[in-house]
Amino acid sequence: MPKKIKKLAIYPGTFDPVTNGHISLIERGTHIFDELVVAVSMSAGKNPMFAFDERIKMITDSISKMKFPSEVRVVGFDGLLADLAVEMKASAIIRGLRAVSDFEYEFQMALMNRRIARDVETVFLMPSLSWVYLSSTIVKDVAVNGGDIGGLVPPVVKKAFKKKLKK
Amino acid sequence: MPKKIKKLAIYPGTFDPVTNGHISLIERGTHIFDELVVAVSMSAGKNPMFAFDERIKMITDSISKMKFPSEVRVVGFDGLLADLAVEMKASAIIRGLRAVSDFEYEFQMALMNRRIARDVETVFLMPSLSWVYLSSTIVKDVAVNGGDIGGLVPPVVKKAFKKKLKK
Amino acid sequence: MPKKIKKLAIYPGTFDPVTNGHISLIERGTHIFDELVVAVSMSAGKNPMFAFDERIKMITDSISKMKFPSEVRVVGFDGLLADLAVEMKASAIIRGLRAVSDFEYEFQMALMNRRIARDVETVFLMPSLSWVYLSSTIVKDVAVNGGDIGGLVPPVVKKAFKKKLKK
Amino acid sequence: MPKKIKKLAIYPGTFDPVTNGHISLIERGTHIFDELVVAVSMSAGKNPMFAFDERIKMITDSISKMKFPSEVRVVGFDGLLADLAVEMKASAIIRGLRAVSDFEYEFQMALMNRRIARDVETVFLMPSLSWVYLSSTIVKDVAVNGGDIGGLVPPVVKKAFKKKLKK
Amino acid sequence: MPKKIKKLAIYPGTFDPVTNGHISLIERGTHIFDELVVAVSMSAGKNPMFAFDERIKMITDSISKMKFPSEVRVVGFDGLLADLAVEMKASAIIRGLRAVSDFEYEFQMALMNRRIARDVETVFLMPSLSWVYLSSTIVKDVAVNGGDIGGLVPPVVKKAFKKKLKK
Amino acid sequence: MPKKIKKLAIYPGTFDPVTNGHISLIERGTHIFDELVVAVSMSAGKNPMFAFDERIKMITDSISKMKFPSEVRVVGFDGLLADLAVEMKASAIIRGLRAVSDFEYEFQMALMNRRIARDVETVFLMPSLSWVYLSSTIVKDVAVNGGDIGGLVPPVVKKAFKKKLKK
Repeated sequence: MPKKIKKLAIYPGTFDPVTNGHISLIERGTHIFDELVVAVSMSAGKNPMFAFDERIKMITDSISKMKFPSEVRVVGFDGLLADLAVEMKASAIIRGLRAVSDFEYEFQMALMNRRIARDVETVFLMPSLSWVYLSSTIVKDVAVNGGDIGGLVPPVVKKAFKKKLKK
Repeated sequence: MPKKIKKLAIYPGTFDPVTNGHISLIERGTHIFDELVVAVSMSAGKNPMFAFDERIKMITDSISKMKFPSEVRVVGFDGLLADLAVEMKASAIIRGLRAVSDFEYEFQMALMNRRIARDVETVFLMPSLSWVYLSSTIVKDVAVNGGDIGGLVPPVVKKAFKKKLKK
Repeated sequence: MPKKIKKLAIYPGTFDPVTNGHISLIERGTHIFDELVVAVSMSAGKNPMFAFDERIKMITDSISKMKFPSEVRVVGFDGLLADLAVEMKASAIIRGLRAVSDFEYEFQMALMNRRIARDVETVFLMPSLSWVYLSSTIVKDVAVNGGDIGGLVPPVVKKAFKKKLKK
Repeated sequence: MPKKIKKLAIYPGTFDPVTNGHISLIERGTHIFDELVVAVSMSAGKNPMFAFDERIKMITDSISKMKFPSEVRVVGFDGLLADLAVEMKASAIIRGLRAVSDFEYEFQMALMNRRIARDVETVFLMPSLSWVYLSSTIVKDVAVNGGDIGGLVPPVVKKAFKKKLKK
Repeated sequence: MPKKIKKLAIYPGTFDPVTNGHISLIERGTHIFDELVVAVSMSAGKNPMFAFDERIKMITDSISKMKFPSEVRVVGFDGLLADLAVEMKASAIIRGLRAVSDFEYEFQMALMNRRIARDVETVFLMPSLSWVYLSSTIVKDVAVNGGDIGGLVPPVVKKAFKKKLKK
Repeated sequence: MPKKIKKLAIYPGTFDPVTNGHISLIERGTHIFDELVVAVSMSAGKNPMFAFDERIKMITDSISKMKFPSEVRVVGFDGLLADLAVEMKASAIIRGLRAVSDFEYEFQMALMNRRIARDVETVFLMPSLSWVYLSSTIVKDVAVNGGDIGGLVPPVVKKAFKKKLKK
């Protein structure tokens, strides 16, 4: 048996904004991997509501006081996820699996990443039942229409919306 | 950060019979976990074509000469998977994700297992593209109808079918 | 506008056995309809684990002490659901919508029922999130394998399993 | 049994434009509820082809000469649907269920609405088979490309397209 | 350009019993192919309600008086569909596409057939909207429960049910 | 039996850009039809990355040196596909079937086309397994992020990206 090597996983996303579902997945990921890198994609083409810096900051703040069984870091990235995975010597890419429509896109991306980063597995984790139907999109819809998103997102995100929507 | 603990994963199934898709998933699992236990379910209620012993033997033989980056063991079990997971102090249950219909049943089982074994994550892995549409059921259909299953299953399974279908 | 007529809905199923998901749906149905008839299908062809009488009795017991905003009755039936709906002058047939696979079968049945009972709408309700992935089948799997089903089914069902599995 | 209370349902949508599928659903809804409120969402973020006023007017005109078994009203709204439901003391929100992709988004929305408006059920109805595959989007595609949409939409909508596309 | 060759397609199934949906697909197939072979599978493992001979006879009778733009024949077969396709020098295998669950199984079978019969395309056709939700299974359910299946199946099938259910 | 008539099929799309999956489908289509017309839609509303002319040119170049068992032509079109099908006296419209989400949209379009062009069948073909998860969208994502798309698209498309992304 080979010598024990630390297993690193990347959890990529736009995180526009981070939700409690994402946080739940980060926690679940640390049960399995020795090191977890949350990789915030610039996603310029997706026209995110929150700026790249804001998104990185919100997720960093959200997890800063939490304790996880293994190390968690946040990085921003632009370009191909598979390239980042190779560069970081990741064992795996973590993806949350919410629903059927997700499923197909995720398959497509996983196969594409495999072409570039052959040794990096895509690992699908299931969020807690409470967050199975939660998404950044629906959070934005509710917030913009004046609804209460407390309980769906970390406090720092709730504050960010308040500030943004006041303008 | 806590001291490094070996991560064990259980890969359960009826394996009636084991296919190259299963083997591919076992290999992928060993990229992530330090120890992988292939748990062959007795599955008496499913009326398997191959006996419990035969199924265990076929999978054991199939992987006996392969080299994996981490340790792989085969066990048989009857009863609840979640109980086995707790007993074995598993970090995760591995499931292959083939298609949409799988997806829902897997979700259901994963949530049920989580009720019993709170700290055990269900981890979904994607088989190689070549095996995405392969299943034990279709292998049996092809074999019983006189088709060639070489290339779809390990050699030991091909032999087992030949013997069984001669009778 | 026509004179107010009492709206009756039928909630059909095999209920083998009734689960907390079914109970949740009955309750939701009574928020909408003035009278709700739980129609237990004999379903001889499905080889149910519990006898017709047992299934009727379990669901009757389960709801006997509950209070609903409108009247609830339990009946057994054999034959076509659409015929029962016409006979009872039902306004609607209630169906729980759990997942994608359900969805298609339900569509098929709803269209078939519409052919026979033109004025009876099929109304799909969503169970509470906690029960979205619960089914009679998975309850039986867990119980038969010695797992704890408390919290998933009414107490009377738990007792019935205990008795049945002792034999 | 409590005193009979009138059951009101809200049928929300962008209705850009109203199609015969929507009309079919309104009719079906009036078989079940004592009062039905068609709630046209401003949906500014969706960039609708028809203005808010036009959309309200088209649906109002379309149903003005129809007879339904219970009262139907049209209102416009901006903001959260769940807030409107609470304000109107609705028993239910009606949603048409067309296909699998619908299904998931609808689930998500239904759960979100339930958080805010606990006592309001989301009720899914199936349109007539003829309209199962009809959507406002496809109607717009056909009309813009010079196709005939007669038979798919109320006459007033056909006229509106003619006027709009002449410009 | 190569010399024009007659294109033959096989439309396989258990046809237990043939429905109007099947007939609709046969007709559609003859719009495309020069020769269409309806291949009734023995399907012993599926425990069909109607005997192999009966199923072949019902479909033969049903189409005997119809006129199609190209030649239609009925054959029975046991064994692998792909072998039959090769033997008959078929250009294509026709499959009806009803719904999502069909879709996946069909994909699986199509890929399996492609392994054996490389030059035979699997061609998916859509039945008329009226039959999109019709299946042999639901027809049997309705008939066994005393429902009227006229309009769903050819007259010969209705008669066959009458005879069978009298016993 | 009627005199043999040449069967023409239309394979429509935006082809923004053409991928190896499209090429594979064109080839498969020529196994079945006597003449295949690749119809490039202007798709102005979809904001394509490549201009109408470029898209037509890329697909024309890609297939210019290939040999197919029957004739293949490329045309551009604006307007309704069904109108083009009628005008060209097509027997069929070819659509690639990749995944579940495709499936529904395709159904919708197929039914809409059938309303206008009654005698034109929509025929769904399955791409080679290697291309099942390939789409123009994912190709653009990879290319824009600096990834290698060689092996996914014809050489002319790779060159076009290089030129476009240099600007």
